[in-house]
Amino acid sequence: MLQAAAAKAAAAAFLWTPGADSPSQHTLLHVTSPIIGLVEGLLTGETTVGDVLQRGDFGIGTLNHLDGEVMVLDGVAYQKGGEGKCRLVDPSEQTPFMTVTRWCPDVADTVQLSGRTEHSELLAEIEGHFPSQNLFYAIRVTGRFEGMRTRSVIKQAVDRPLAAVAKDQRVFELGACSGTLMGFWTPGYLGSGLNVPGFHLHFLSDDKTQGGHLLDCVALEGKVQIQALHSADTDLPQTQDFLAADLTRDPADDLNSAEK
Amino acid sequence: MLQAAAAKAAAAAFLWTPGADSPSQHTLLHVTSPIIGLVEGLLTGETTVGDVLQRGDFGIGTLNHLDGEVMVLDGVAYQKGGEGKCRLVDPSEQTPFMTVTRWCPDVADTVQLSGRTEHSELLAEIEGHFPSQNLFYAIRVTGRFEGMRTRSVIKQAVDRPLAAVAKDQRVFELGACSGTLMGFWTPGYLGSGLNVPGFHLHFLSDDKTQGGHLLDCVALEGKVQIQALHSADTDLPQTQDFLAADLTRDPADDLNSAEK
Repeated sequence: MLQAAAAKAAAAAFLWTPGADSPSQHTLLHVTSPIIGLVEGLLTGETTVGDVLQRGDFGIGTLNHLDGEVMVLDGVAYQKGGEGKCRLVDPSEQTPFMTVTRWCPDVADTVQLSGRTEHSELLAEIEGHFPSQNLFYAIRVTGRFEGMRTRSVIKQAVDRPLAAVAKDQRVFELGACSGTLMGFWTPGYLGSGLNVPGFHLHFLSDDKTQGGHLLDCVALEGKVQIQALHSADTDLPQTQDFLAADLTRDPADDLNSAEK
Repeated sequence: MLQAAAAKAAAAAFLWTPGADSPSQHTLLHVTSPIIGLVEGLLTGETTVGDVLQRGDFGIGTLNHLDGEVMVLDGVAYQKGGEGKCRLVDPSEQTPFMTVTRWCPDVADTVQLSGRTEHSELLAEIEGHFPSQNLFYAIRVTGRFEGMRTRSVIKQAVDRPLAAVAKDQRVFELGACSGTLMGFWTPGYLGSGLNVPGFHLHFLSDDKTQGGHLLDCVALEGKVQIQALHSADTDLPQTQDFLAADLTRDPADDLNSAEK
């Protein structure tokens, strides 16, 4: 945890003025549905990617039947499928889980990486710039990488829990590449039912041919941008499967094994 | 848990059509800030009750410095203070924690109590009408009571954790009375950081002279109304105290001892 004095000083740059009626679109994390549904194998949502793009132009997620990894950058949704191809997502496609915001980083919080940076060092560097452990953050790293390991989950014929699906994930060793890491950091006090606690990052290469859920990387140079998010909303699915599901199991262990 | 078939049948009455841009105001639970702040003794918010009333006309909460219990009914906020008086709240007063919605119950889900009903029976009766354990519900019981026990927390001179404050709460034995129980039910999969899991009900007498956080009651007759809520939003406080707080402790035990 940051010391109180340091946090107070650093927090000044992140203050915002809430509107009278609704949270600012620029500081709102939108979670399509609680991630516990995905953990418990509810892989089919009724929300379209087009609906999600109306709520935010930056984010990550997956498609129905856990069909790969989704990256939303500058309002465009890309998918890295389990078969290895990267493609544009049609707005009519549906998703069981995405998280998005309107990208509007704090200029004061742009950080240039100082040289070769391992994955764990990169996360520590990013976290070191958070003025508080108690907010959400959107994170974007534009950089050149010595190497990158990503994964994509494989489209499922039948619903089954996320941890089981993740055991069959496709792993991609990208080698030297340039591109963007994007995603979010969620404070731990919200538990594991709503969203992935801590970091959750996906990658998309500059030429839009490579991507997926980040497993490991080594950055050679890069620019880190951070946007503090001061509010969150989530819809609860209307599907019969969600309404009838037993969601009483703690999803923390499954999320940790599937997402880290 | 309900059986799947029963849940699917019962759920039909609760389906709604989400708007293109934002969740329906009629199905939105608004949480002013995560309750873990209150649990950890952050008793001062910057949100006014007037701001909260713009987000909903039905709900419960407290005032800054944990000054009593708040009941919002038909767009009017009342406070039962620790000193025992019930009064109107001025919209300029501030709150560290409230939960509200726009009250719009499902007509099909109005239930007449069949006779003398103990507190535990009342909660079981209400829960028995939920089509799913996985949604939020707003709950309103208009009734005549043989007896009622409520509590109000006492305004604090200095910040201290909720469980410590609750040990000094004022308890009121109301005797025979008529009035309204109001509040919410929150699904357990969201943990204890955002809102009180399960039931959280306050009481306000018809003559607006009695009220507080419900501890126990015996209903003689009454009407139960239930409103399913399919989305939720929360703002994260901007106070320096919140940004600097250590919120890593699990609040479940403290919430259970303070609120049940």
